[in-house]
Amino acid sequence: MRSLVAPVRIHLGPTHNAELADAITGAGGVLAPLDDADAVVWTAGPDSFPRDLPDSIRWVQLSSAGVESWLDAGIVDEKRTWTSAAGAYSRTVAQHTIMLLLAGVRHLPEQLKADSWRKDEFDPRVGTLDGSTVAIVGCGGIGRALIPFLHAAGAKVLAVTRSGVPVDGAALTLPADRVDEVWSNADHFVIAAPATSETAHLVDASAFARMKPSSWVVNVARGALVDTDAAVDAVKNGVIGGVAFDVTDPEPLPDQHPLWSLENAIITPHVANPASGLSTALAAHIARNVELRCAGSELVAKIDPNRGY
Amino acid sequence: MRSLVAPVRIHLGPTHNAELADAITGAGGVLAPLDDADAVVWTAGPDSFPRDLPDSIRWVQLSSAGVESWLDAGIVDEKRTWTSAAGAYSRTVAQHTIMLLLAGVRHLPEQLKADSWRKDEFDPRVGTLDGSTVAIVGCGGIGRALIPFLHAAGAKVLAVTRSGVPVDGAALTLPADRVDEVWSNADHFVIAAPATSETAHLVDASAFARMKPSSWVVNVARGALVDTDAAVDAVKNGVIGGVAFDVTDPEPLPDQHPLWSLENAIITPHVANPASGLSTALAAHIARNVELRCAGSELVAKIDPNRGY
Repeated sequence: MRSLVAPVRIHLGPTHNAELADAITGAGGVLAPLDDADAVVWTAGPDSFPRDLPDSIRWVQLSSAGVESWLDAGIVDEKRTWTSAAGAYSRTVAQHTIMLLLAGVRHLPEQLKADSWRKDEFDPRVGTLDGSTVAIVGCGGIGRALIPFLHAAGAKVLAVTRSGVPVDGAALTLPADRVDEVWSNADHFVIAAPATSETAHLVDASAFARMKPSSWVVNVARGALVDTDAAVDAVKNGVIGGVAFDVTDPEPLPDQHPLWSLENAIITPHVANPASGLSTALAAHIARNVELRCAGSELVAKIDPNRGY
Repeated sequence: MRSLVAPVRIHLGPTHNAELADAITGAGGVLAPLDDADAVVWTAGPDSFPRDLPDSIRWVQLSSAGVESWLDAGIVDEKRTWTSAAGAYSRTVAQHTIMLLLAGVRHLPEQLKADSWRKDEFDPRVGTLDGSTVAIVGCGGIGRALIPFLHAAGAKVLAVTRSGVPVDGAALTLPADRVDEVWSNADHFVIAAPATSETAHLVDASAFARMKPSSWVVNVARGALVDTDAAVDAVKNGVIGGVAFDVTDPEPLPDQHPLWSLENAIITPHVANPASGLSTALAAHIARNVELRCAGSELVAKIDPNRGY
């Protein structure tokens, strides 16, 4: 066992990245080849990941917040600690989320299409979050980063988490097994839960049916959490106000899909966490875990294969 | 002189409004005809305002945040107290502001035009406010309501106010006579100053020239604060990232104006403070002033004709 003060020897792969290398060494780590390392920081997907990982590797830091593909590939084992980038990108995703929610509630897409001053038409349709209740379904890192935006807007937060342990800043927190109660008890819905077998089609036709005709549903998590066909029907028939999806099912969303042309559907192509901010946010996240590891402390964003994230 | 515990007798005009009437009586006021009132709450513009206001009227509460038209018409006198609705609509305007700023920085308009999954094209262009500095030029009620949104986004605030007295939550506050220093010292700019002769064309060609090619300029105050032709040039020539205007000069913005078709110009037709939220926000504002008046306390949003707002 290395002593608590020894630097962690880290293999950065599959390719070198100056910003991440600086983050690792700045946090007290030492860069090392795979055979001489006790940890791996991996910036690509599972396909190129070494299948014959030496037993000396005690910790693997991945670079994505969602790790379904790693779990599906059977790579995440119980022999060592695995951490994801969950939380690293929360603040930029929260920005995208509040933008999508406000764009929906304030009917921005129709205003952007206008080429004349249609104030009388738009003015009565522009809504506000002030005084509304916004449910955050899956209130983890993204949800927690979203709460201050919602408070600034004068909205109340209804949180749903796996455990139901009260979330700071939420007026009420419900455990995941009571998620069905939220659909009729909030004005708008932000879906930010991990994609697991239990959360597939969490938002389905019966959920939409319980929402208000003015409700917007924003999905910034994974497309599979929402029943896409049910969403199309709900928007088309005015069951809800609209949907704003940064993630879709299927993804990429095929050309000619009705969501591209529905008036009250906003689609952004999985850019809530854009490439432009990736390495900076990831560097800060990795630096934090390297510091914790060097200090012998518990890492953040540990993956639990049984839980699915 | 009425005693401090006597209710204020208020004339609500020019037409009755149940929500405002409830706000007035709920706050301790009594509704009265004009000749028997000591205050007026006026929900329309200056055109229909009684020119021969009885001297017994000691306070007039107007329903708009901007009062240029009242000052221009010479109606606001020094014989009595006049209050505007400044601040009443700050939170909904702040929502619109953060939406416009994020829509610009994250290139939402181009994404909304897409009818196919153009992730590779958009992803590298989606920016973030995290780590940026946003200047709020004219940091009054709207600016103060915007600050918590900017903090949630991880942005630093550079405030400009008339006095330069430090604004809570701003990293730095400059007085209005140093406004020229902000253009080269922030990443993005929110214009939220009152329209006065001193602030006309505050944002001109030389201001745009000092900004970054990635800077967005959001105007939610009055169109005249920005030199529109200079803004068109700055956007067209890539001097700045773009403009998002809820107010324009001229207003309404004429059909065929270049701002309607420029790729990096977002126009919303003066709906930051939409009709849907007007009476609720105004009712809360009026109730507050009626309560203060009944208690003999200083009113909020007092108009100073010499200052111009």
